[in-house]
Amino acid sequence: MSDKKVTSDNLIKEKRDGVVFLTMNNPSKFNLLSEAMLQELQDELDCAREDASVRCVVIAGAGKAFCAGHDLKEMRSNWDFNYYKGLFATCSKVMQSIVSLPVPVIAKVQGIAAAAGCQLVASCDLAIASQAAKFGVSGINVGLFCSTPAVALSRNISSKRAFDMLCTGSFIDAETALDWGLISQVVAADELDHAVEEKLKQILSKDANAIRYGKSMFHAQRQMPLADAYAMAGDVMAKNMMELDTCEGIDAFLEKRTPVFSR
Amino acid sequence: MSDKKVTSDNLIKEKRDGVVFLTMNNPSKFNLLSEAMLQELQDELDCAREDASVRCVVIAGAGKAFCAGHDLKEMRSNWDFNYYKGLFATCSKVMQSIVSLPVPVIAKVQGIAAAAGCQLVASCDLAIASQAAKFGVSGINVGLFCSTPAVALSRNISSKRAFDMLCTGSFIDAETALDWGLISQVVAADELDHAVEEKLKQILSKDANAIRYGKSMFHAQRQMPLADAYAMAGDVMAKNMMELDTCEGIDAFLEKRTPVFSR
Amino acid sequence: MSDKKVTSDNLIKEKRDGVVFLTMNNPSKFNLLSEAMLQELQDELDCAREDASVRCVVIAGAGKAFCAGHDLKEMRSNWDFNYYKGLFATCSKVMQSIVSLPVPVIAKVQGIAAAAGCQLVASCDLAIASQAAKFGVSGINVGLFCSTPAVALSRNISSKRAFDMLCTGSFIDAETALDWGLISQVVAADELDHAVEEKLKQILSKDANAIRYGKSMFHAQRQMPLADAYAMAGDVMAKNMMELDTCEGIDAFLEKRTPVFSR
Repeated sequence: MSDKKVTSDNLIKEKRDGVVFLTMNNPSKFNLLSEAMLQELQDELDCAREDASVRCVVIAGAGKAFCAGHDLKEMRSNWDFNYYKGLFATCSKVMQSIVSLPVPVIAKVQGIAAAAGCQLVASCDLAIASQAAKFGVSGINVGLFCSTPAVALSRNISSKRAFDMLCTGSFIDAETALDWGLISQVVAADELDHAVEEKLKQILSKDANAIRYGKSMFHAQRQMPLADAYAMAGDVMAKNMMELDTCEGIDAFLEKRTPVFSR
Repeated sequence: MSDKKVTSDNLIKEKRDGVVFLTMNNPSKFNLLSEAMLQELQDELDCAREDASVRCVVIAGAGKAFCAGHDLKEMRSNWDFNYYKGLFATCSKVMQSIVSLPVPVIAKVQGIAAAAGCQLVASCDLAIASQAAKFGVSGINVGLFCSTPAVALSRNISSKRAFDMLCTGSFIDAETALDWGLISQVVAADELDHAVEEKLKQILSKDANAIRYGKSMFHAQRQMPLADAYAMAGDVMAKNMMELDTCEGIDAFLEKRTPVFSR
Repeated sequence: MSDKKVTSDNLIKEKRDGVVFLTMNNPSKFNLLSEAMLQELQDELDCAREDASVRCVVIAGAGKAFCAGHDLKEMRSNWDFNYYKGLFATCSKVMQSIVSLPVPVIAKVQGIAAAAGCQLVASCDLAIASQAAKFGVSGINVGLFCSTPAVALSRNISSKRAFDMLCTGSFIDAETALDWGLISQVVAADELDHAVEEKLKQILSKDANAIRYGKSMFHAQRQMPLADAYAMAGDVMAKNMMELDTCEGIDAFLEKRTPVFSR
């Protein structure tokens, strides 16, 4: 992806100051995760993974909805078990690519996040939402339990809260999502852009390498027994200590001066 | 179990509109989980598992207490290591049967839930409590650390909160239990019946198959690494998509009409 | 360690009524976890593990800060990958020794807990903090992602909250730490001593054996699949039931009298 704004069928892609902005751009269809949308998201995440200059990824939605989940019409026109297995594998790969990406991924949630759209929010490292946002795993309303969204949701909020949402299809507002830990910040609708920029500023002011050491380690160690988690984290942290920018950061701190990072 | 109300030594059993109501009915002994009570609960959970017409199970307590845990008198009259191992295995099987049951299990908590009674609440998918309810793992007060209750409790609330309850034996009120995620809803005492009926209405209005696909998958995937969890959930969801009622649910949604489910 | 107060280079060690008080005592260096401090902490934890008369351990900090994490100056003077691996292994061993210690460990947090200092709080079973305390994993500010602290932190608070702290280096106050479950109690600064004493009284009033059965089991079972966790907990609880003090505790309860424990 070049450093300018590119609009494809499904995404607006922009890279600015090391940040990749991916805006799902099918507002008339509530930014549904069609096969094409999932493929484009996967491609961009793969690009971001390979691009050492990327510092952060922001996933947003154009229009009123953040993302209404899978494209049910497309799904109904392919009534085949193996098609569905493939589709959910494709979608799960996108979600896991976010988790394993070496840089932070921020969900910028301006409106409703439903079903796999809610899963997308849950899969991101951070989520900043407008007070107008709502969150639900509402597949049950059409007879489809949000099984893959449940994987991400249940790793963010407590069991009974997740199960209630999954079997009633009810939505929670942004304040509740914050209280439960599904999102990391709520702001007024007209402050969402600013809040995301401020969070990016915070992250970009840190040493890029250090964030890269931490990001995927953070999620990997969560699924390990304590001793394995510590072994992995200790190894990562020792490597982090060998970086020249880290030495500079520490020396600057000890000498009470501003660090000068190489990037 | 027939579709009418049956009262045994320990349980009032009723099945109504696909919902199995199991009311622990030994109020003078605070609905203690005696061997007999555990056996009856296990038998009814096994029946519910085999009965395709069951949509939901509600576990309640008669009288003032929800459940005060194990029957300490019975336990003291059997001072034998193997007896205790067997007893805790029996109790743990009841708790795990709730978790693996293919339909939602709701705890209806009108009063105190102590020790294994608190574990019972923690083991249910949802828990609706009266403001009069209290929750504690108080075995430590008699010199018996609530080890098996800790298994369920620590899968519902955060580590320090659980450990504090376990090593002080102190009780939390219903609002605190809601705030910590141990229960899913709190209502005034005189609204408990209504709140449970409303939750049942919500769940019964959904496609029965879809809930069955989701219920046991939900808990199974929580203990898996992320990739395994997604593989399992994707498989379950693809099967769910092949159901005719799911097709009808989706078609109705796409056509903006009310779905007509086969059951 | 004898039963009187001993002051070493880094720790004030005191044992009183079965409670080991370890006060990190390098206030001019914010009680940094230097090699020497880690070694002394490890030695004292090892002693406490072997001493059957120990009922509880309290870890506190002298001066204004609770603990500001690793000693960056010492670390910079040893720029060697294997040195760092060894150092983080040493530190991780201290943290895991707290988790596996057979008695409760309480963090008494009077001031700032940063980086590995925050990890220390997260690793304790309980944490009682002054309103003046602050918590952060701020290594990222000097280019060192708090990878090993992330292991402990992410087992205490939800994913997005932990990740936000890790990649922004920002601090949370004591009330927020309580709300998120990182600590178990907050009190006014001048009530911290009293609050810790009250918590100790609560724990010491319980049967010592029962607490020992529960403590390390509690953390071990958290990382097991549900069936394994129940098998372990059931075995521990059956052993607990065979203790004479537990029999006495239960009999006293059944006979509505005060129990007389053997210790």
